[in-house]
Amino acid sequence: MCRTARSVEGTLIVVGNEVLYGDVVDINTSTIGKTLFQEGFLIARSLVLSDNRSELAKAIRYWHHRSDFLITTGGLEPATNNVICDALCDAFGLQQVRNRAYCETFRKRINDAGLSWADETDLPEGAVELTMDRPYMGFRMVVENKPLYCLPGVPTEVAYLVEREVLPDLKNHYPERTCFRRRIIRVQRLSEWEVAKRVGKLDLTAVGVGYLSRIEGETWVTLTVCADNGNKADEFLNEAERRVVNAIGRKFVSGKDGEELEKVVGDMLRSRGMKLAVAESCTGGMLAARIISVPGASDYFERGYIVYSNKAKIEELGVNPDVLERYGAVSEQTARAMAVGAKEKAGVDVALGITGIAGPTGGTREKPVGTVFIGCACDDRTVVEHHVLRGERQIVQMRSVQAALRLLWELLTHDSSIHSS
Amino acid sequence: MCRTARSVEGTLIVVGNEVLYGDVVDINTSTIGKTLFQEGFLIARSLVLSDNRSELAKAIRYWHHRSDFLITTGGLEPATNNVICDALCDAFGLQQVRNRAYCETFRKRINDAGLSWADETDLPEGAVELTMDRPYMGFRMVVENKPLYCLPGVPTEVAYLVEREVLPDLKNHYPERTCFRRRIIRVQRLSEWEVAKRVGKLDLTAVGVGYLSRIEGETWVTLTVCADNGNKADEFLNEAERRVVNAIGRKFVSGKDGEELEKVVGDMLRSRGMKLAVAESCTGGMLAARIISVPGASDYFERGYIVYSNKAKIEELGVNPDVLERYGAVSEQTARAMAVGAKEKAGVDVALGITGIAGPTGGTREKPVGTVFIGCACDDRTVVEHHVLRGERQIVQMRSVQAALRLLWELLTHDSSIHSS
Repeated sequence: MCRTARSVEGTLIVVGNEVLYGDVVDINTSTIGKTLFQEGFLIARSLVLSDNRSELAKAIRYWHHRSDFLITTGGLEPATNNVICDALCDAFGLQQVRNRAYCETFRKRINDAGLSWADETDLPEGAVELTMDRPYMGFRMVVENKPLYCLPGVPTEVAYLVEREVLPDLKNHYPERTCFRRRIIRVQRLSEWEVAKRVGKLDLTAVGVGYLSRIEGETWVTLTVCADNGNKADEFLNEAERRVVNAIGRKFVSGKDGEELEKVVGDMLRSRGMKLAVAESCTGGMLAARIISVPGASDYFERGYIVYSNKAKIEELGVNPDVLERYGAVSEQTARAMAVGAKEKAGVDVALGITGIAGPTGGTREKPVGTVFIGCACDDRTVVEHHVLRGERQIVQMRSVQAALRLLWELLTHDSSIHSS
Repeated sequence: MCRTARSVEGTLIVVGNEVLYGDVVDINTSTIGKTLFQEGFLIARSLVLSDNRSELAKAIRYWHHRSDFLITTGGLEPATNNVICDALCDAFGLQQVRNRAYCETFRKRINDAGLSWADETDLPEGAVELTMDRPYMGFRMVVENKPLYCLPGVPTEVAYLVEREVLPDLKNHYPERTCFRRRIIRVQRLSEWEVAKRVGKLDLTAVGVGYLSRIEGETWVTLTVCADNGNKADEFLNEAERRVVNAIGRKFVSGKDGEELEKVVGDMLRSRGMKLAVAESCTGGMLAARIISVPGASDYFERGYIVYSNKAKIEELGVNPDVLERYGAVSEQTARAMAVGAKEKAGVDVALGITGIAGPTGGTREKPVGTVFIGCACDDRTVVEHHVLRGERQIVQMRSVQAALRLLWELLTHDSSIHSS
């Protein structure tokens, strides 16, 4: 499939003591990998290293020889003693130079942002600073005809610089390269194992297939193809997608790539002119937060009730105190009353209600931690689902939110009679 | 400081195509690093590699020689062709053996979980399976007297296995080791640069100091010390913490280690017997979700209103339509009315209201994207803060939530007259 063009592969070095200590998660690898891949550049490996100068220098030298380009994140702020500059100079036998223009420009930008900075900083000889637009550190250089980019550690700055500086420069340096395409197929209700069994029966040579079990309870199938040109790659990918979706079963597939459930459901609500409200107990706003994470959600999302206490359930949603007394706050009856109450109170077409025991305490033998009831009131009927979800508090909450969106998606998809009243 | 005991350092190899492609973020490094560090084991580096057999074998061989232990995550499921087993056998010249007992046990556990699995899987000779409790794959082995752990890729399974299997085994293998201690100091209202300037004036030899600018708008100072025994390490750490907090200014420090703002505020509300309600517009439930992420939040969190539409603001919170008309939904007056309305409607002691423009659209010249007003109604007075926050939609939302919690924290901390009415 890939005959003439070649694959351009890079190495990423993350200076990340705080990642290795577990203070933070490294999101730079994922951001950089995704951004570059779309344009045909692969991050073949990412090394999360501490700020040890000699180990950094060794890794830079070793991987520079074996990669088409190199990117580093972190380790260039004065607070980290500019370790990446030291390591680069050690690796390539370069001098450190006091780049006064860089310091001055940088100091000015920091001051403009209302911060103060009195340190000087050196660059390896031959390095050129990145962007002049924003007060972000970073420089690039070329060693043995291979480009090298040193970025700061802050994820938002990395995202900006990769898009604006690294990618255009790389394209310039490597105009000829293999075309890659990648697709995520989002599957509901089937486990990774079940999906792998169904897809595994297909003969998909020349397509990379991966499986991913998302913690909130969605399964992803990833398809990767490469070809000499974009049209061919698109063709391969579309054909593979068609076959995979058929093998899985169309009704389990909720979307592809960035089509999160909240976006798919939102688009359906908008196109039908329907308004949505939610009533949440154990998820305390997480369902609403996912819904409004989509820009333009105000087209269909009306309001939400976080009815954490029984008092709130009664006062805000008109849940009958007898129902709470007889069946408990975590029950099919309460979930139903919450959904119906939210629908009527907010005057909307459809409403979701969630009540459950997220833990770590509050479980009983009849209703263990993870017991969740989800109600969906739509037209004149109300559907309630009962789940016993595994995992810690936050995971139970995430899975409850996913289950609620999934229920709404299924009702909207499979029951074409549901429309704005 | 560390004279007799030695530091035990390991290498982590993450088989993560989907991380390199940007589908997911690697959280295993952070989880494993944090769990092991608390017991004196360092993850000195983490390599995120693709499922390339020869590169994996090379990395395993190279780093096994240079580490006290090795951990891998991912690449052992049948769906990935068991690449980690192949790579291990290549690296150490081992045979693959069909471990029928492992297969049977595993098949049984998978079946018990309601899944089906028909594949056989091999292990390197000498490998011993991990846990019998749960249907998680994984094995351990010892090569040249160094322990080696192969874990699955799923983060929840990794967290469980590291705690339950890896850590006890490592402690057994390396009973003597250096004591490490680490502390995070959480700073509000000061930038990373400002904090670094204040702390940089101290002479803190033998203490590792790091700075981290959290995306939601909190600055972390991390302190790391090591010593021959726990008491000495605690002593060093406490002394360093005292000096650093004084240098920063006590009033800017909201907590340490796992004391998130929502936990600190929650504890203050509980101890004063106060009840909280929130009213959210542009953050649509994210503030409530952060508050209830703390177990036991029902002690003080009463309810929340997600008043996304103007209609909801009027109907649920009694915001005067004239106020919305004259000043707009994003205004000081509306934030004030939302906070007061929530406080009265919910019958609580204190209420927060957030209204703003999260973007990407909706900004004007007077009120650009990122404009946020936060109201806090407490006793007989209401404080409103005005912010213009930078970043994309989700970042503006996260920073708004942080600003709201910070405002409440400051009012509760610095104004001791605020109590349950």
